[in-house]
Amino acid sequence: MFSRLRPLGVVGLGVGGVVVGYLAGNHKTVAHNSWTTNFKPTTPWDWNWDRDPSSLIEPTTKPDGTLNKSALKKNETDDEKTERATCKATRYILLVRHGQYNLDGATDKERTLTQLGEEQARLTGERLNELDLPITRLVYSTMTRATQTAQIMMKHMKQQIDTVETSDLLREGAPIPPEPPLGGWKPERHQFFADGARIEAAFRSYMHRAPPSQTTDSYEVIVCHANVIRYIVCRALQFVPEGWLRMSLHNGSVTMLVIRPDGRVSIRQLGECGHMPPNKLSLT
Amino acid sequence: MFSRLRPLGVVGLGVGGVVVGYLAGNHKTVAHNSWTTNFKPTTPWDWNWDRDPSSLIEPTTKPDGTLNKSALKKNETDDEKTERATCKATRYILLVRHGQYNLDGATDKERTLTQLGEEQARLTGERLNELDLPITRLVYSTMTRATQTAQIMMKHMKQQIDTVETSDLLREGAPIPPEPPLGGWKPERHQFFADGARIEAAFRSYMHRAPPSQTTDSYEVIVCHANVIRYIVCRALQFVPEGWLRMSLHNGSVTMLVIRPDGRVSIRQLGECGHMPPNKLSLT
Repeated sequence: MFSRLRPLGVVGLGVGGVVVGYLAGNHKTVAHNSWTTNFKPTTPWDWNWDRDPSSLIEPTTKPDGTLNKSALKKNETDDEKTERATCKATRYILLVRHGQYNLDGATDKERTLTQLGEEQARLTGERLNELDLPITRLVYSTMTRATQTAQIMMKHMKQQIDTVETSDLLREGAPIPPEPPLGGWKPERHQFFADGARIEAAFRSYMHRAPPSQTTDSYEVIVCHANVIRYIVCRALQFVPEGWLRMSLHNGSVTMLVIRPDGRVSIRQLGECGHMPPNKLSLT
Repeated sequence: MFSRLRPLGVVGLGVGGVVVGYLAGNHKTVAHNSWTTNFKPTTPWDWNWDRDPSSLIEPTTKPDGTLNKSALKKNETDDEKTERATCKATRYILLVRHGQYNLDGATDKERTLTQLGEEQARLTGERLNELDLPITRLVYSTMTRATQTAQIMMKHMKQQIDTVETSDLLREGAPIPPEPPLGGWKPERHQFFADGARIEAAFRSYMHRAPPSQTTDSYEVIVCHANVIRYIVCRALQFVPEGWLRMSLHNGSVTMLVIRPDGRVSIRQLGECGHMPPNKLSLT
């Protein structure tokens, strides 16, 4: 057995303890100090990541203590304003990856779902139906494979979905150069230029806490693409966005993000596809 | 509709573009520049995270060009040594959370699986059986609920598992203070002191690339606890370890990590529990 604990012998205890590996060469050799007693988070959570609505209200008193006339005009106390701007509900967002599709298609229109892809979409729709979540909104990317997936899913869901929307922002693309880079996947620089800000805009458009007017928790479905989902997950969880390629997602898999009223975000499942029999699983 | 794109109007383009929010107050207002064209990763991937075996070999030539006598004694060329130290296989590691258990138990022994917890363990065992992965090793935490889960799972798996081990390192605990902190969960400082290094040791013991002697890909199961799994996932993916509480995991759920020979790590699913009917899902 390859002993893993042996290198511990050379770990210096304490903050910034450095492992002097045997012939370290060019490798980084700093030990993570996450298990020391005086641990300080390297990156504090940004509570205002989505422009917390309460940060958008205009108080009646200026920082220097004088009255803010423009705010007074609105005839509302600061407490009332804060109440009006405070989020009350939790958003559950289910990110679904499209089913398997014809990789040989020359255009997006020709990149239609394979028969397996259609079955995956059906199975995912059936699972969401079985879970019986009160889904009120479904948004899908305008690319053919996502559109087909969404439409098949909806056929198998008995929920009355109030809002069904399409979005170009959710189309597949190259969000940012991944770290670590991947040998086989090297988009041209112009692709990041074309797609990066658009996928970031998708994140800002769809991932945010509930508007203050929303009083009950909501369940929403977004049908889109692996890169878009992975980038959104990194951004929403405030992990380094360039880490998006450290995840891979099965076709038709369901990822669930939870956005609390206080701006806290968590993930309950990533790439769930246990609702599919083993012979229906695919990654392409 | 709560417009999310409006604030974009005040985003300064370029690296470090700063959003001057309306009455920003104490909130952090730095815009993420992840969609700019001159993106640089904030944290390069540490390829040597698990003490890459190839960094442990002793070359026959010293950095100053002179011969290294102690290395020459071993009668092996540098190429042979590198070959001997090079990883060849991929490890697939399935992290299973135990089933629901009796929260009222005063001692670990009394915190046995509930009837639902037993069913979850059975369903997860059946799923792993159905997936028919060539599982060769199963390790479980010595806590009662993990032990029971592992034993029920194994009853339902036809795989001949060569190695079945138990580990105290995998027991539940408080890895490090979470960021963001959670109101309802505030362990005493001494708990982090007692558990932190031990859970980090669990990570270092079980998460590493395949030993060079391993020539075929392997599938291994680790049955343990939510905090342990979440901390391991953050560390393995090189996301900030204090972010472990940004994930929540269903009982009996399966998380799969993939460790490539080059030291790349990715996650294929987190908290998968789609193999359970909706009335068998639980989070406690």
